[in-house]
Amino acid sequence: MSLDGHYDDQNIFAKIICGEAPAVKVFEDSDILAIMDVFPQAPGHVLVIPKESARNLLELSPEAASKAITTVQTIAAAVRKALEPDGIFIAQFNGAPAGQTVFHIHFHIIPRREGAEIAGHGKAGMADMAELKQIAEKIRAAL
Amino acid sequence: MSLDGHYDDQNIFAKIICGEAPAVKVFEDSDILAIMDVFPQAPGHVLVIPKESARNLLELSPEAASKAITTVQTIAAAVRKALEPDGIFIAQFNGAPAGQTVFHIHFHIIPRREGAEIAGHGKAGMADMAELKQIAEKIRAAL
Repeated sequence: MSLDGHYDDQNIFAKIICGEAPAVKVFEDSDILAIMDVFPQAPGHVLVIPKESARNLLELSPEAASKAITTVQTIAAAVRKALEPDGIFIAQFNGAPAGQTVFHIHFHIIPRREGAEIAGHGKAGMADMAELKQIAEKIRAAL
Repeated sequence: MSLDGHYDDQNIFAKIICGEAPAVKVFEDSDILAIMDVFPQAPGHVLVIPKESARNLLELSPEAASKAITTVQTIAAAVRKALEPDGIFIAQFNGAPAGQTVFHIHFHIIPRREGAEIAGHGKAGMADMAELKQIAEKIRAAL
């Protein structure tokens, strides 16, 4: 899907937001959700998902964008405290040709470690669920 | 440089902000600056640089982060209008192990085209200055 087109409310993040699909949550309030990526590019990969129905950053309201980036700051600080990575990569993809695979706006928070490559976006294997829940618990405790 | 350490006010973006080093500017106000990346990963690669003295997103004030992401939205919309890419990749690196090369907070706006790979971060060649100025003029006209 390119930058043109319309929002499809059957996408997986829309279903997670309305409670129809499961997710390992790190944080949630009325505007925003943070969950563990089930296809982590590195351990501790978190997604920050505004609840507004927007496909990408170009469609998101400035208010929701502000809330999103300050939430990214808060979660990234917790990821740092909980997992002590050497660096943190923030990525946000708009349109399939840019790497977007789910067409509901989201930000990636990806911990980086010195000398360790990360899996390609959309090329990582599925996480072990028990491990994912353990990591989420650590991050939540650091919030 | 890892996530630890201190802000070095001799970094190249600090010099650009205070007018001591040149840049091809796309937008500027009292809080923020947008310039063309002179080592573009793809044509139209723009950097959005908050003026606050912070090394990374973890150190940036929430106010400056909000201003940064809404400016990214505005510039990305202008990039889309001016250059008609198929997608837009937003990247923000924190710490050298995450790919950060200049230790003053900045966001990358990278146009993507169907089937075209982008150069690796820190691996792109230097842009032709005349071409860079032409692209900047197109983006400014679309703001």
